[in-house]
Amino acid sequence: MIRIRPFQPEDWPALWAFMEPVFRAGETYAVPRDITEQDAHRMWIELPRSVRVAVDGHGTPLGTYYLKANQAGPGDHVANCGYIVAPAARGQGVAARLCEDSLALARELGFSAMQYNLVVSTNETAVRLWQAHGFAIAGTLAGAFRHPALGPVDAHVMYRRL
Amino acid sequence: MIRIRPFQPEDWPALWAFMEPVFRAGETYAVPRDITEQDAHRMWIELPRSVRVAVDGHGTPLGTYYLKANQAGPGDHVANCGYIVAPAARGQGVAARLCEDSLALARELGFSAMQYNLVVSTNETAVRLWQAHGFAIAGTLAGAFRHPALGPVDAHVMYRRL
Repeated sequence: MIRIRPFQPEDWPALWAFMEPVFRAGETYAVPRDITEQDAHRMWIELPRSVRVAVDGHGTPLGTYYLKANQAGPGDHVANCGYIVAPAARGQGVAARLCEDSLALARELGFSAMQYNLVVSTNETAVRLWQAHGFAIAGTLAGAFRHPALGPVDAHVMYRRL
Repeated sequence: MIRIRPFQPEDWPALWAFMEPVFRAGETYAVPRDITEQDAHRMWIELPRSVRVAVDGHGTPLGTYYLKANQAGPGDHVANCGYIVAPAARGQGVAARLCEDSLALARELGFSAMQYNLVVSTNETAVRLWQAHGFAIAGTLAGAFRHPALGPVDAHVMYRRL
């Protein structure tokens, strides 16, 4: 039983516990691998327009996403989101639920499109999941991501209208 | 006789004089049309890694560009630049000179690619100029820019290796 609700400040330690290893691994996010907890908090919680959290029946956080405008001014009708699912909660459809929730929220906030700027091509589960949620690969950036094991790999810009 | 040199703090009033109308027009940059001078200074001068200025034989600024990493961490080998040419100096090849200089600078700083995130499709002069400098349209984002006269228009992500 997964529920998605707004972020509350007391969620942070649980979120950081599963976000930190993802950033440290450096395989999926264009975030410094040595990012501090404070900078991660600023990036994920303070700067975006909305942050939501998926919780199980006991209220335990399973994943989170942020939503913000991808560009300013005449580009601020295009939303951008980032999603992280706790490793222990993978394979339960949490990312799909987060994505669906974010599309609904973006519409509700008046956005008319959503863009992911850098989907690492080797993260095939993510690429397929976003495609299943209506995103197309708008373009592929050759070698735009330095994978810690594979070296430079391609990254996709993914986009959909809302 | 165009020369390109590092930005100096005393350049700012001359740069802002030709940047402001470009932002106010809202036809080419995903920047709030009502951006304050202070925010523009932060965006163009303070946050980027390098800022350079094209000047004529009398030292008068004709254009400027900034250079920064487009993403953080495992994406920070891809550079991003923005360019503005003074309206009075258009048609003299200033933008081409700025672009060439920025490609050389990016290589010098160790970047291995350059990306423009939002090239407004109706800005055909710019699209052709970047193509002439080795950039390809990596992808097109449908309706990602609200043009003040034309309504929602497409924007290109443009990319090249260095």
